[in-house]
Amino acid sequence: MSVNATVTVEVGLGDRAYDILIGSGLLLRAGTEISRRLPGTRAAVVTDDNVAAAHLETLKAGLEKGGIQPAVITLPAGEKTKSFAHLEEVVDGVLAARLERGDVVIALGGGVIGDLAGFAAGIVRRGMNFVQIPTSLLAQVDSSVGGKTGINSARGKNLVGVFHQPKLVLADTEVLDTLPIREFRAGYAELAKYGLIDRPGFFAWLEENWGKVFAGGPERAEAIAEACRAKADVVARDEFETGDRALLNLGHTFGHALEAATRYDSARLVHGEGVAIGMALACRFSSRLNLASPDDAARVETHLRAVGLPWRMADIPGELPDAEALLAFITQDKKVSRGALTFILTRGIGQAFIARDVPASEVLSFLRENHPGRQSRPGPQKSSPGQQKSRPG
Amino acid sequence: MSVNATVTVEVGLGDRAYDILIGSGLLLRAGTEISRRLPGTRAAVVTDDNVAAAHLETLKAGLEKGGIQPAVITLPAGEKTKSFAHLEEVVDGVLAARLERGDVVIALGGGVIGDLAGFAAGIVRRGMNFVQIPTSLLAQVDSSVGGKTGINSARGKNLVGVFHQPKLVLADTEVLDTLPIREFRAGYAELAKYGLIDRPGFFAWLEENWGKVFAGGPERAEAIAEACRAKADVVARDEFETGDRALLNLGHTFGHALEAATRYDSARLVHGEGVAIGMALACRFSSRLNLASPDDAARVETHLRAVGLPWRMADIPGELPDAEALLAFITQDKKVSRGALTFILTRGIGQAFIARDVPASEVLSFLRENHPGRQSRPGPQKSSPGQQKSRPG
Ligand SMILES: NC(=O)c1ccc[n+]([C@@H]2O[C@H](COP(=O)([O-])OP(=O)(O)OC[C@H]3O[C@@H](n4cnc5c(N)ncnc54)[C@H](O)[C@@H]3O)[C@@H](O)[C@H]2O)c1
Ligand SMILES: NC(=O)c1ccc[n+]([C@@H]2O[C@H](COP(=O)([O-])OP(=O)(O)OC[C@H]3O[C@@H](n4cnc5c(N)ncnc54)[C@H](O)[C@@H]3O)[C@@H](O)[C@H]2O)c1
Ligand SMILES: [Zn+2]
Ligand SMILES: [Zn+2]
Repeated sequence: MSVNATVTVEVGLGDRAYDILIGSGLLLRAGTEISRRLPGTRAAVVTDDNVAAAHLETLKAGLEKGGIQPAVITLPAGEKTKSFAHLEEVVDGVLAARLERGDVVIALGGGVIGDLAGFAAGIVRRGMNFVQIPTSLLAQVDSSVGGKTGINSARGKNLVGVFHQPKLVLADTEVLDTLPIREFRAGYAELAKYGLIDRPGFFAWLEENWGKVFAGGPERAEAIAEACRAKADVVARDEFETGDRALLNLGHTFGHALEAATRYDSARLVHGEGVAIGMALACRFSSRLNLASPDDAARVETHLRAVGLPWRMADIPGELPDAEALLAFITQDKKVSRGALTFILTRGIGQAFIARDVPASEVLSFLRENHPGRQSRPGPQKSSPGQQKSRPG
Repeated sequence: MSVNATVTVEVGLGDRAYDILIGSGLLLRAGTEISRRLPGTRAAVVTDDNVAAAHLETLKAGLEKGGIQPAVITLPAGEKTKSFAHLEEVVDGVLAARLERGDVVIALGGGVIGDLAGFAAGIVRRGMNFVQIPTSLLAQVDSSVGGKTGINSARGKNLVGVFHQPKLVLADTEVLDTLPIREFRAGYAELAKYGLIDRPGFFAWLEENWGKVFAGGPERAEAIAEACRAKADVVARDEFETGDRALLNLGHTFGHALEAATRYDSARLVHGEGVAIGMALACRFSSRLNLASPDDAARVETHLRAVGLPWRMADIPGELPDAEALLAFITQDKKVSRGALTFILTRGIGQAFIARDVPASEVLSFLRENHPGRQSRPGPQKSSPGQQKSRPG
């Protein structure tokens, strides 16, 4: 495969099917690819400050080649932008550009911009065309694929949104070169996740080739394409998340609790880092429940550490709430029926499954055992004396 | 048919199919009907001040019978409530009640509450269950059926929303007795619309029986049921409004322009009144274009006048902008390609069709001819001297 080859992954969703194109130089082909699929379309580009500075001019040049002169809506970068206020701003901007249902909203940015712009596209005139141009690794391998869009609420993250599939995804692997390395790593956690869910061969390939993925060779496009295939498979089986799609939450139950516990302070923890720690914990927890071998958990931890990702709670700078408080963050957003929780657990690398009956008490003891002990509520611990015993690392 | 019989109309939308129950005393049966379809569900009721004062206690008693104790979210009455700010308020209230995707949002109110609560139900957790309990005649025959939800934007009405079908519609014909007569009449305009679109027999039946529909006999439920059948038919053919469903906009192009021209001041014109005048104008315009007989236009005008509805622009209190300005309101929200507009026109009562090539110039002369002449921009008229000639009435 040459560096410039474009890989196409098809997301098979019947009359909502669409292509993901993966390769370098795609921003410059955007106009051609979009107008081929949506002839005569008009467009609004939604982006953030960082991405606009690095890539907006290139995209505009690319759109121009397809005869598209877009309206541009630029928002502040960061998770806080996924709010009702900014949703209203995007909706208003799209309407101000007098776009119709058949015109297109283009998201140029990471998952924040993709989720927000996709939601706006899903509700303006009850649904407009939408194209994703993901610019972060996380967005290329995860958020841009599958049609989940949304914003955050004071009551929790991603609680408000719609399913709205794009007409096309353009994952330009070159734009990732301007991504801060910490963000690249965070996206890599989600990439590795697909190996852990059901692609053990992919995980082994990543153990071998991750350096080339970071460096930007053809392996980068290949890894992204494999991740998109993995996600597209799950989405095609369960578009509206009534079953299997929950597997994609591997690492996310612990991860979300840690994000909440650090008050979504990205200086301490970004989402993908939370997922990295969460995946390591989910594997370790599975081994503690005698579902998986401790060797598999160790292999996961070793790989995350190798690429520079945090993999245990102790890697989070600053104090963490105690185990009880972490459990409360976990149960907050979940139905707890008769003391049991739903979790994504695993029988080994590439063998994740949905466990619907995990006792909250087991989670609590596990959290105690793995807690780094630097707690934000100092004073005598209510937890068992063995608490620090099996703390890894 | 006895007064208490319940009529069921099924909306045939495959796996999104649902029942509309029409009859008296349905508020008291709400708990039974909802928990039969959604066993074990929890609920939030969204309503407005007026409706809460008249009917909330009855509904709560009815829900109690099905073991449902709802959270209640009460909003100010009126079109202004269909805003981003109130959408956020409803979303937050539903989340505060810790409802899950399988729980239900219940709209108790007119079209404003139905549109807003349905939109909230469509986006909280990317789609929750939704039940409509329409309390205005307009909501019972129109807005509660078909799954269109939404809010207004500074750029125009109903420009933001989703398609989100309810699981059940309960149209309690008794609650209409507290509805102000002017609102009842406004809803009646939408009811008569179905006769004009494609049910000439229904229109003739209404000419005969409208008094009993207003009075509240079994004819009321029968008329509502027929309207729901008519709308359900159109919706089943074209759920996402890509074709035929546009027929439901009969009277709405002129009507919306008049609403905009009176700045949505409900003291001057409510939506159904705008539709009444709009339908009369659409028929008159069709006859002027030699598509329909002037007798049919006269018959429509006579019936609207008989029930006490406005039927011509002169019936709107206060000054109206001139014909050019009205045309600008019409073209504002529509694609005008090469000077031609899409309009719902008719070949006679019950024979409406979508006309895609109506010259804007024809619309303008028609508006001039039918303009009452009390214009908000006084001064010499640019329009033809024949302007007032064929002004009806
Ligand atoms: N919809 C889904 O299915 C789904 C799945 C996973 C995550 N998400 C959401 O995605 C979001 C996280 O996505 P993210 O990590 O991309 O966050 P992000 O969009 O905030 O991007 C991270 C940072 O990188 C910057 N950036 C992005 N691309 C860049 C580039 N090419 N060059 C320089 N800077 C660049 C951004 O400005 C931002 O500061 C979260 O809100 C999460 O909830 C959604
Ligand atoms: N979704 C759709 O397909 C669709 C179709 C048509 C209209 N609509 C929307 O519906 C709205 C108009 O609906 P509406 O006319 O019902 O307006 P509305 O909801 O404002 O109700 C009209 C008035 O009647 C009051 N009211 C309602 N029921 C009552 C009762 N039983 N007793 C006493 N007072 C009562 C309300 O408080 C309000 O003051 C508009 O926003 C329009 O855009 C939507
Ligand atoms: Zn994630
Ligand atoms: Zn209407």
